[in-house]
Amino acid sequence: MSLIESICKNIYPLDTRFMEQAQARQDRLIKPQGSLGKLEDISIQLAGIYGSKYFDTTKKIVLSFACDHGVYEEGVAPNNQNITLLQSMNFPKKINGVGTISKFVGSDVQLIDVGINCDEPIEGVIDCKIRKSTSNMAKGPAMTRQEAIRAIEIGIEMSEKYIQEDYKVIGIGEMGIANTTPSAAIISVIAGCDPQEVTGMGAGLKKELLQHKAQVIRTAIEINQPNPTDGIDILQKVGGFEIGSMAGVILGCSANRVPVVLDGFISYAAALIAVNINPRCKDYMIASHYSAEPGAKKALELLGLDPFLKMDMRLGEGSGAALAFNMIEAANYVYKNMLTFDEVDMGM
Amino acid sequence: MSLIESICKNIYPLDTRFMEQAQARQDRLIKPQGSLGKLEDISIQLAGIYGSKYFDTTKKIVLSFACDHGVYEEGVAPNNQNITLLQSMNFPKKINGVGTISKFVGSDVQLIDVGINCDEPIEGVIDCKIRKSTSNMAKGPAMTRQEAIRAIEIGIEMSEKYIQEDYKVIGIGEMGIANTTPSAAIISVIAGCDPQEVTGMGAGLKKELLQHKAQVIRTAIEINQPNPTDGIDILQKVGGFEIGSMAGVILGCSANRVPVVLDGFISYAAALIAVNINPRCKDYMIASHYSAEPGAKKALELLGLDPFLKMDMRLGEGSGAALAFNMIEAANYVYKNMLTFDEVDMGM
Repeated sequence: MSLIESICKNIYPLDTRFMEQAQARQDRLIKPQGSLGKLEDISIQLAGIYGSKYFDTTKKIVLSFACDHGVYEEGVAPNNQNITLLQSMNFPKKINGVGTISKFVGSDVQLIDVGINCDEPIEGVIDCKIRKSTSNMAKGPAMTRQEAIRAIEIGIEMSEKYIQEDYKVIGIGEMGIANTTPSAAIISVIAGCDPQEVTGMGAGLKKELLQHKAQVIRTAIEINQPNPTDGIDILQKVGGFEIGSMAGVILGCSANRVPVVLDGFISYAAALIAVNINPRCKDYMIASHYSAEPGAKKALELLGLDPFLKMDMRLGEGSGAALAFNMIEAANYVYKNMLTFDEVDMGM
Repeated sequence: MSLIESICKNIYPLDTRFMEQAQARQDRLIKPQGSLGKLEDISIQLAGIYGSKYFDTTKKIVLSFACDHGVYEEGVAPNNQNITLLQSMNFPKKINGVGTISKFVGSDVQLIDVGINCDEPIEGVIDCKIRKSTSNMAKGPAMTRQEAIRAIEIGIEMSEKYIQEDYKVIGIGEMGIANTTPSAAIISVIAGCDPQEVTGMGAGLKKELLQHKAQVIRTAIEINQPNPTDGIDILQKVGGFEIGSMAGVILGCSANRVPVVLDGFISYAAALIAVNINPRCKDYMIASHYSAEPGAKKALELLGLDPFLKMDMRLGEGSGAALAFNMIEAANYVYKNMLTFDEVDMGM
């Protein structure tokens, strides 16, 4: 049995016994029932994930995956491709967006190279390079099926490595110039909509180039004909290595009963691939923030997820996931520390 | 000159020099310009409020105001009125919603009694009682004009007390059974819309009673005829003491160049009163979360504010403001600590 198959066999539904216990506690805290909204929902979901009435959420990490994209040569991104490498070198120093936010919330960050356009390993970055950059999906499949499977496996392996190191909450992130293009392609295929509907400016593409970007995605889908019911096929034909690895982290966390916190637009695409492979993993996801990309809404609808941060962020890296760690810890803190009517004796 | 007049004379526009400096720094941080969305906006607004390129946001407090409402007797709230008193006793112990969240984010909370239905002072609660409960606005004005002015003055005085104690960020909150009713009335008057459009379930009113609640508000507006261009008149006729005091905190913070963080629905009504008295105070407000009340959207549109938390919370107390302190500190931390392209020398 392949690693993906064996992981999928281990993804079970949430433990409703502990969700009921958490719900019962929430209903006895000194507030109108349900009035803490998603802070309550998160605590109940966590009880179901961990299979425990109480749990610890302090040890957190963002796993980010970096790679380059062959489709860059079609002129779909505003930045130089070498930004992928240059920004990757900033991750271990924690001076970039996700690094700074991680310091603020007390989480770790680890970058994993799955396909950066460089020969030398980067200090502080885990080297799992599949190959230097995917192929140009506008001219053929982005990668082979074997490479797509490997990308997912790397994500599974990384999630299990850090879960063994006792991390209790895992966020996913990415770094890869042009990667909103494969993300929009994946969402377009799974939603069955025209690429135009889900194509946005990414890191700052000029408006007049949006139609071109959508046309490149349209071409990629037409020549590759990805099968909308086969997540691995979609990933192979119009995806990216980092998207596959993020999907792998989602599957790995789900099988190991650890919550996985999504970031923005690219992570939504990864989540759709993961759900396509195993729908149960949806229960283990926590959506962090609304991406500012126009395809975000459609992707979130498909996932049935409703993020709680509306920051208009479009940085990626895992920055939104890191920011959301704070709200997850707040949810757990309130759930544990707020008193119940019985404890206060308000005569109710 | 009255206190309200003298405070309003001291509310100046934001300092654009420092906002430009903050914007320039944001534009040089190692990320696509604007990609951190509202985290960037908050830092720039804070620079304009404090009149300083860098600033400290660690000393924070939620000022909550509690009182009872005469309109309670119309059957507009699902809870016993004595919950106002019982929950007020929980504030100093920090075991309630806002208290627990405040402990999590490292902020203080102070409750001020401006009209709770009780004779004895409450330990740990500042006694500024105007009188025990407002009058029933469905039968006449909720309070006298002098009382409305006094409610606002209390808010101004409290904000200045804590600003003198070196608090750098002030949130507003409230406790008062039935207070979504005057809040919806205020929003209805200022928006010029039928109460039905802005009336919601509050802390858990049954659906079949919503129409009744809207009718009570309609009656209150009809018999009192508040002047939509006179904030004090609206407060007097269909408001509440705590709403007036929250508006006072907004005015006081604005005059003293300290950011004031809104909470949910009731704080939106207070903000509308404050803006009605002096429109410049809008620049000093930070909206925290989207209230789950249906009138929230209309109020936020009138205020021109766009909150960043979407937690479906409807607890009040200042709980959303306290939760938002975290994001404000994150914004400041990222702004200060993320490196610029010059500092990293990425050759850009």
